[in-house]
Amino acid sequence: MNFRTDLALERHELIGKDDTEGVSSHTENKGNVKITRIEIRTPSAAERLSKPQGNYITVEVPSFSSDGEILDSKLHVLSSEIRKMLPDEGTVLVVGLGNISITPDALGPKAASYILATRHISSELAKSVGLTSLRSVAGISPGVLGQTGIETGEIIRGIVDRIKPSCVVTVDALASRNLSRLGSTVQMSDTGISPGSGVGNARKRLDEETLGVKVISIGVPTVVDGATLAHDLIDREKSADYSVLPESEEMMVTPKEIDLLVERASKLVGLAINCALQKGLSPEEIMSLVS
Amino acid sequence: MNFRTDLALERHELIGKDDTEGVSSHTENKGNVKITRIEIRTPSAAERLSKPQGNYITVEVPSFSSDGEILDSKLHVLSSEIRKMLPDEGTVLVVGLGNISITPDALGPKAASYILATRHISSELAKSVGLTSLRSVAGISPGVLGQTGIETGEIIRGIVDRIKPSCVVTVDALASRNLSRLGSTVQMSDTGISPGSGVGNARKRLDEETLGVKVISIGVPTVVDGATLAHDLIDREKSADYSVLPESEEMMVTPKEIDLLVERASKLVGLAINCALQKGLSPEEIMSLVS
Amino acid sequence: MNFRTDLALERHELIGKDDTEGVSSHTENKGNVKITRIEIRTPSAAERLSKPQGNYITVEVPSFSSDGEILDSKLHVLSSEIRKMLPDEGTVLVVGLGNISITPDALGPKAASYILATRHISSELAKSVGLTSLRSVAGISPGVLGQTGIETGEIIRGIVDRIKPSCVVTVDALASRNLSRLGSTVQMSDTGISPGSGVGNARKRLDEETLGVKVISIGVPTVVDGATLAHDLIDREKSADYSVLPESEEMMVTPKEIDLLVERASKLVGLAINCALQKGLSPEEIMSLVS
Amino acid sequence: MNFRTDLALERHELIGKDDTEGVSSHTENKGNVKITRIEIRTPSAAERLSKPQGNYITVEVPSFSSDGEILDSKLHVLSSEIRKMLPDEGTVLVVGLGNISITPDALGPKAASYILATRHISSELAKSVGLTSLRSVAGISPGVLGQTGIETGEIIRGIVDRIKPSCVVTVDALASRNLSRLGSTVQMSDTGISPGSGVGNARKRLDEETLGVKVISIGVPTVVDGATLAHDLIDREKSADYSVLPESEEMMVTPKEIDLLVERASKLVGLAINCALQKGLSPEEIMSLVS
Repeated sequence: MNFRTDLALERHELIGKDDTEGVSSHTENKGNVKITRIEIRTPSAAERLSKPQGNYITVEVPSFSSDGEILDSKLHVLSSEIRKMLPDEGTVLVVGLGNISITPDALGPKAASYILATRHISSELAKSVGLTSLRSVAGISPGVLGQTGIETGEIIRGIVDRIKPSCVVTVDALASRNLSRLGSTVQMSDTGISPGSGVGNARKRLDEETLGVKVISIGVPTVVDGATLAHDLIDREKSADYSVLPESEEMMVTPKEIDLLVERASKLVGLAINCALQKGLSPEEIMSLVS
Repeated sequence: MNFRTDLALERHELIGKDDTEGVSSHTENKGNVKITRIEIRTPSAAERLSKPQGNYITVEVPSFSSDGEILDSKLHVLSSEIRKMLPDEGTVLVVGLGNISITPDALGPKAASYILATRHISSELAKSVGLTSLRSVAGISPGVLGQTGIETGEIIRGIVDRIKPSCVVTVDALASRNLSRLGSTVQMSDTGISPGSGVGNARKRLDEETLGVKVISIGVPTVVDGATLAHDLIDREKSADYSVLPESEEMMVTPKEIDLLVERASKLVGLAINCALQKGLSPEEIMSLVS
Repeated sequence: MNFRTDLALERHELIGKDDTEGVSSHTENKGNVKITRIEIRTPSAAERLSKPQGNYITVEVPSFSSDGEILDSKLHVLSSEIRKMLPDEGTVLVVGLGNISITPDALGPKAASYILATRHISSELAKSVGLTSLRSVAGISPGVLGQTGIETGEIIRGIVDRIKPSCVVTVDALASRNLSRLGSTVQMSDTGISPGSGVGNARKRLDEETLGVKVISIGVPTVVDGATLAHDLIDREKSADYSVLPESEEMMVTPKEIDLLVERASKLVGLAINCALQKGLSPEEIMSLVS
Repeated sequence: MNFRTDLALERHELIGKDDTEGVSSHTENKGNVKITRIEIRTPSAAERLSKPQGNYITVEVPSFSSDGEILDSKLHVLSSEIRKMLPDEGTVLVVGLGNISITPDALGPKAASYILATRHISSELAKSVGLTSLRSVAGISPGVLGQTGIETGEIIRGIVDRIKPSCVVTVDALASRNLSRLGSTVQMSDTGISPGSGVGNARKRLDEETLGVKVISIGVPTVVDGATLAHDLIDREKSADYSVLPESEEMMVTPKEIDLLVERASKLVGLAINCALQKGLSPEEIMSLVS
């Protein structure tokens, strides 16, 4: 079987880890968190891996079952990695990609709902409540093309033109080949993203070239994509119901508790972005401000 | 691969349709709706099919994409089949089985939310608003064992003891082997049900023997169960993450738009039960009373 | 008592209906729907009424209790009035204002969720499915300043700059002085709107002057605003709890079934906008496409 | 104006705190938490206060704005007070009263969703995961009469007959006369409750007499009831819309952020009940198990 994957890590496994021409990969363990850094350095490597040139950091955390467990080392490791990719100054615009009404696709909008928006808070007000330095942050969940009639890239460019951020951070649900990675692997990259499936349509792409500012993409796999799967599973009868057959591209494999998995991963990512951005606030303070 | 199925129809296909000892099966088409009536008549047939003895009526409807489309022939066919199974008199207790917080398992509670509860409305009041005959109906969604700490059967028996219905109708999400049946096939049976997966625990079973009244079970497949699937899909590495592996039993294959599929199938089943029970009201009147 | 109102109709009642200098008001009944057309023609009248110069059409419909009842004359009257205000050509951008997480403020985003976005559907595709003419429509719910850190006006202007609509239609929850109007009165105006309460900050205003295109504002009262009310109601003790006192501005009077009221009014407004825009589709077709 | 109140504390204020015949009242401060203990000892006092004889403990906490703040002294004080009322042994059945679809009435069902149900967990299993003693707890949210067609008391009695708890704890939303108490005052009593408004219908009452076991009622005011209010506010015109007038009994005054207020108060009450019941678990452990 051949499952679609959005993870550079899995792409590298698929072509064989020995294939290192133009690709480097380093793994590091911090406690129970595993970090893999992949750099795709050449156009040829980009083609073999079917991923744009650039850096991909994958953080694999143990699964967790409650809010309390978010506040441990995995939040710290994750926010450190995000912070390294952020510019030191300027407004950061966080964009939650995906459709909040479709559970496995809701990770982006849900993570965005945990973002502490501060761009509208004056520094005087921040100081008056004891916050000496508050990084300017804006956040939005623009919806998907089918809901809005507008390419997500057009909406984001319109907003970028007006608020002039130094960086855009996108958050999106991904597909993995591997059930064990659902909800517990976070991929960060500096290569941008194509909302709605990497069809390779340049016009749609959200990256430094199209937006004019740095773009950091953060994603968590929530499903194993069933494109190929469907053909194998369907025990098709020669019946009149053939037309009822759901499009195979829309099938997925996921845990039955997908609602919970998405909720927890969204909260982890949202909090990690806040921690990366607001150095003056502790994780506990951030958690109490956004929940 | 060997997928679990809750449909007698698929069980029969699995043992081979030629195996008719103690089993009968008849198919009928009404417009674009296909009805299959299976009767399991002997203990031996029940064992071969792994389903209790009794009658299973399966209604396969074309998929539908909106409220408007519910109000067509499929609602009529479905409510006619349900009506045939109901006793002519007495209160009917409709029970929505499953966990409303887990999308693929929410079908029962959501269908129950569309039930027109009338048991508390006096016949005088009903007449005063122009309803000459209103069948006495009660409805409840008791939650699942993990939420309540109480076997669903205990809750239902407690309520049955007090309100003395002539019949209990359960609604539950099922597993199918076939993606094309998700959301568009309805199984009705007179054999009762074991909430939480047919583990075969007699104490838990909801049927005429345990409840003392007729039990009609209505179910719609919302997932292809991934029990076996998981073992095949998982590209397990020899990593520390092994422990993270989600239980294979909790995996499912389903359309990405599972939220929409469950919403629509719940409404169809809820309305069909109402139409079967309230002969004095048209489908349009029922739709306007419950939505 | 002196309650805040967003309805020109109630403002006119407050200054006295006899005060007609620079104001005209006409009332018309269509079946059980009452239409009042108010025109504020002079700066002096605008000041007396505390509303910008322009036209205000108020449609008062009987309350309704189900989906079925939406599809009657009130939908027809409402969509006719909206259609009269729309330009004949060009893309229309529908904006759902308000916070979807706060029930009484969720009317705008909920109505926007019922909008049939078509701008991304090519006319060839539309024809191929039998739709000869599909008006180009885009829709977005930008969230509120506290969530995004961005003035709503900035987001909308960014999008308007990119997609160049001929008209922006905003939908928002309003405050009324009159409980009987909650959920059953719709005000439409050509004067624009100040998201987040008419604080009079020109920079924030969404109107033809700031956006460069026609702006139609549609609103439904969902609360009686408790600004003054709070001071009268609160039976303040000389206790340490004084600090706990909620801000009086945040109090409201509303029916207990506010969730239902907002859901129904959102659907009515969303469908009416669709009907006004898509002349080639019947209300039934629109209802089946969006629900 | 004369607002309805469910708080014994406010009833006592209304008749005058000097009226102490058959009533005692003691106030205590623990940090920033205020505890008032009222005992109604005679039938005459019960009649003057319009509340059944018995004990009413009211805990007034400072308002709080996040999860983090729940885990401070107010949780400790609240759980201590609840623990004092509980029997030392036997299963405890927690019942969430109210309609989860109506925000201000959803407090009971939402609090019940935070209850750690343990009755189905064998003591062996509990020990195997390091829990030496786990109190047997069951929980249910039976819905309201209009949804189920069954009196809540009938459902609870049916369940009590089967699982034989030593105590029933009900959780419900209350009405206060005082806006400052919404969401931040918790009343506990040993007198039972009449679901759906204290109409005084003995058949409906949930108390030791009707259920045969101890009943503890916990409630939090979420609204100021608008019964009288509505008549004063409504600026009724002599119009055909008179029939549209919402029933005055259904009006309420509440903060606009009622959704958030109910969410937080539900979590506080749910966690406090868990802490009172599970002496072997810390508040942090409980929070991580239920959220």
